[in-house]
Order: sequence, then structure tokens, then C-alpha cells
Amino acid sequence: MAITVVGSVAYDSIETPAGRRERCLGGAATHFSLAASFFTEVRVIAVVGEDFGPKQEAVFHARKIDTRGIEREVGKSFFWKGSYLDNLNEAKTHQTDLNVFAAFEPKIPEVYRDSEFLFLANIDPVLQRRVREAMPDVKLVAGDTMNYWIKDHRAALLEVLKGLDILLINDTETRMLAGNSNIVQAARAVMAMGPSSLVVKHGEYGATLFHRATPKGGSAERSFKVPALPLEEVVDPTGAGDSFAGGFFGYLASQPEQTPDVYRRAMFYGSVMGSFAVERFGTERIAELSRKEIDDRFMQFRELTHLD
Amino acid sequence: MAITVVGSVAYDSIETPAGRRERCLGGAATHFSLAASFFTEVRVIAVVGEDFGPKQEAVFHARKIDTRGIEREVGKSFFWKGSYLDNLNEAKTHQTDLNVFAAFEPKIPEVYRDSEFLFLANIDPVLQRRVREAMPDVKLVAGDTMNYWIKDHRAALLEVLKGLDILLINDTETRMLAGNSNIVQAARAVMAMGPSSLVVKHGEYGATLFHRATPKGGSAERSFKVPALPLEEVVDPTGAGDSFAGGFFGYLASQPEQTPDVYRRAMFYGSVMGSFAVERFGTERIAELSRKEIDDRFMQFRELTHLD
Repeated sequence: MAITVVGSVAYDSIETPAGRRERCLGGAATHFSLAASFFTEVRVIAVVGEDFGPKQEAVFHARKIDTRGIEREVGKSFFWKGSYLDNLNEAKTHQTDLNVFAAFEPKIPEVYRDSEFLFLANIDPVLQRRVREAMPDVKLVAGDTMNYWIKDHRAALLEVLKGLDILLINDTETRMLAGNSNIVQAARAVMAMGPSSLVVKHGEYGATLFHRATPKGGSAERSFKVPALPLEEVVDPTGAGDSFAGGFFGYLASQPEQTPDVYRRAMFYGSVMGSFAVERFGTERIAELSRKEIDDRFMQFRELTHLD
Repeated sequence: MAITVVGSVAYDSIETPAGRRERCLGGAATHFSLAASFFTEVRVIAVVGEDFGPKQEAVFHARKIDTRGIEREVGKSFFWKGSYLDNLNEAKTHQTDLNVFAAFEPKIPEVYRDSEFLFLANIDPVLQRRVREAMPDVKLVAGDTMNYWIKDHRAALLEVLKGLDILLINDTETRMLAGNSNIVQAARAVMAMGPSSLVVKHGEYGATLFHRATPKGGSAERSFKVPALPLEEVVDPTGAGDSFAGGFFGYLASQPEQTPDVYRRAMFYGSVMGSFAVERFGTERIAELSRKEIDDRFMQFRELTHLD
């Protein structure tokens, strides 16, 4: 079933211990939709400037991603410049130019309206909420956010959380949002804000899935852990979290029912896509990936974690 | 089959966000042997002072641990005072009194000589090596160390590593020992120093087992990951790593053959014992544990990680 994703399509200039790239295609919606496209139909809502041309569009079309919701405005696309020279787990931001993104007003194309799955990538919670409200009939809504919105736009963010089924954030964001340093207690507090499932991403240590305990469901929340793949070289961590989200939500959307077993497999596919994303700069690795490579790596994750 | 362990038996004064305890029974050999005792016969080599009495000895004897190798000397036992107020993952040391431990000369009782498994807990590598050389016929040797020995006693430590089958250390220690920040490359470098297996402990993120690739065994090292249990309250992290080692090595020693599958299960038992250790202060939780609780938690770890 189709996913509509709203978020940024951008250019990134990145420096890591493995090298540097100037203005490669990036943005949360880009990384998410490329990863999700291996599992299901994906439709993007974003805004770009005049610097977004046929070459960039071809990256989406090669993966059969619907780009009719990507608006073209006069000016330049969102631009981010960052480095990971000291710490591969945390980007140092050198420059952020919102450009056409500053006036982004997401519009939902009519042809997107029958999407049953909605992903709200990390953008202003005011916009996330607007898109959520414009698509009231979707079956499942997932979203992402970041420390900036948690700290300085809490009220707007709390409104978004009420409309989410699944939130995907990292450890620090979970603790910050809950105001609690214990991750189990923090996860419970975050789920009380709305989402019935929470995926906490741990960078090189993988991710944990928490489900809210139902009133009938006993005392303890169920949880599930997936590691990250031990990699000999992390070329570029940019987009790893969005690729995880794309693999996770893409797999969920590809299944007729979202059972607990499907969520577990979705966590594996999330970590699989995250592990590919970091192997090369920007979208380079995922854009040329094959389904067979994904399945092989899924089995590698199974080997890495299963007793037999 | 029996394990001989050499290491510290000590008193710890501990402060954590959950409270404080004065002079509770601790030390690496204590935590290790209690955890391992649920799986196999354990024999301790250590030194204590006149403050080690029948009450402390009873903790070992209740778990049928052989204490004939614990020497009594005039003076006081090793004493450590630390806190975890800001960070449960890293102790802040306030006081270390070596006391009788300063002149520790490990002696191996004749009745220990048929032990087939040897664990060298974190002590001066000069002593670790001496014990290793005094027991040349053991089947499997594992050991631990810490940043202090890695930084300032590297030559002695490298001699110890040559005689180890398995080394258990944390991420920071692995990177420091290898001089490499990538954990896969660092693990390979450490295994080239001697041990054919390396367990890298990640604190709240679990642990990774690396095996050295054999010349015939293809290009990539095999690895296996076990998470830590998400816990609502960590009362006292002291001894978690030693309890992990006790569960891991105790299970290995309990099995007729140490196959790759047995190593995987051993990783689970290590994380199980670590998860219990932190639930109460010092040895309180492990000392009163039942085998049924261990098996139940093993199944909980399976649930937490397995697709089906």
C-alpha cells in the first residue's frame, strides 16, 4: 500500500574521515523514500528550487517514486553543510540555508489522497500537523522530529504526537522529550503523549521498538531490539536514520496486516537499510541497491542475533 | 568442568541515584564467581584482610564456591569507593585502598590444579601472566583488563594477551588497545594480539562477540550481538561486567564442547547475569537468585531479539 511522505529534499555538502562531497542529493524525504521504495509505492511532498533538475529527479524515478508532490519554486533548494570528523555518531553543522524551504506550504496532490500510510519526516511540527489533518483517513501514521523542535516548539510538537501511531527518534531526543534519563521510563512517557509505538534509534548500537501496554495487556511494555551491523568503514552517516525509517515503514506498508511479528521484521529491514546508507556518500549506495542485496543482508542480521 | 578465577575480593562503598551502601562485598572475582556458580564449579584465588569474616565467606559457600584459594593476610581488604550520580554507565572513583592487595602473590592450591577453565579477572597483568603460566594445561583461558593497564602497562599486558583464548573488555578499552576508533578494525587488531575471541561490552547496549577468522575461514570475522535488557531502574552498575563474564564463561565451562552455538548461548547468559547484577546493590541480587529466574530471563532475551 502506498506511503505519502512529507519532508525535505535538499543538497548536502558533507565531510567525513572517508572524504568529502559537495552538494549531493539529500534531505530526509529523499533518504526515506529511496529506502521505502524497495518495499512499496512511495509518493513525496516537498519543495525544491531551480537547482533541482532532471538529474536529481531521475534518482527518484529510477526507483518509481512519485514526485508529482515536489513543488518547484523560484530560488534555491534547502542546503546543509556538515562534517563528522571527530564523531561519526553526531554531525557538526556548518551551514543551513533554508532557501525555498522557509516558505514551504505542503500541498497534497489529489492522486496522493488514497495513500493508506503517511510519514511525517523531520520538519516544523506546524507543517506536520497540517499534513496529518489533511489526510485524516490514513491507516497508519509515523513521524520523526529533532532536538530543536523538542526544545523550542514543544506545544506544536505535542499536537503532532497526538496524531501519530509511531514515532522514530534517537536516545537523546527520547530522554529530552520525556525529561527522564531512564530509557524505559522515558519511552513510556513519550507513548503517553500519543504514539502507541516508539522506535528509539541508538546509532551504531541499533534500535529498540517499544509498544504501549494496552489496558488489558499486562503490566510491562513489550519491546524488541535490533543491532546495527558492525561495519569496517562508515563512509557517511547522513541519512542513516531516514533510511532506517524508510526500510521500517516501507516494510510495514507492504504487509496486509501490521502484526507484532511484522513490526519485528520491519525493525530488521530498518537496520538493513540504515547499514547500506552509510556505506557510501549521500544516496549513492541505496540508489543502486538490489532487492537481493537487501535479502542477503537481512539474513546476515538474523545470523548476527539469533541463537539458531 | 571447574573454573579457577583469580582476581579481587573487596569491599565497595557505592552511591547511585537509587541510594548508597557502605562496605558491601564486591570485587571482580566475587561478582564473577557468584554468576558463574549457577553453571559450573568455581574456585577462587584472591587475598583478603582480617575484615573478611564468616559472613562474607558464607556468601561464597551458599553458592558452593571453593574459597580455599582465598588467602588471609594481616591488614584490611581491598577497598573501593565510587559513585554513579551523573552517569550510570561510568563510575567516578573517590577512593581506592589496595591494602593487602598491594602485596598479592597468587598461589594456586593443589586442589585447583585440575581446573580446565581459567579466568583472569582485572588485576596487574604481571600477576595474570604468572597464574596463566602456572596452569599451562587448562583447556580455555579468558580474561579482563582495564584502561589503566592498557595505557601504562602495555608490554606486560601484551604478554598476557598471547596466552588468552578470550578477552572481555568494553568499547573504549578495545579502541584504546587497538589505537583504532572503528570497532570492527579494532577487534581484528586486538585478536591479532592473541585471543581468538573477543567480547566487546557496550554497557546499556549489550555486547558483541567477535571470532578471529581462521586462514581457511573466509574473509570476514563472524560476530554475534546480544542486547542488554531495557530496565526500568538500574540500582547499581558495579559488577555488571564481571557478572556478564561469569555467566558467559560459566556457561561455556558447563558444556562438553565450546561450539559456535555454545558461544552464542553463552553471550545470552552473560547478558542475563549482567541484567540481574544491576537490579540491587553489590552482590545482593545474584546471591539470592534461582536457576528458574535465570532461565525465565533467558527466554525474555530470546523474545527481545528473535523474529519468531
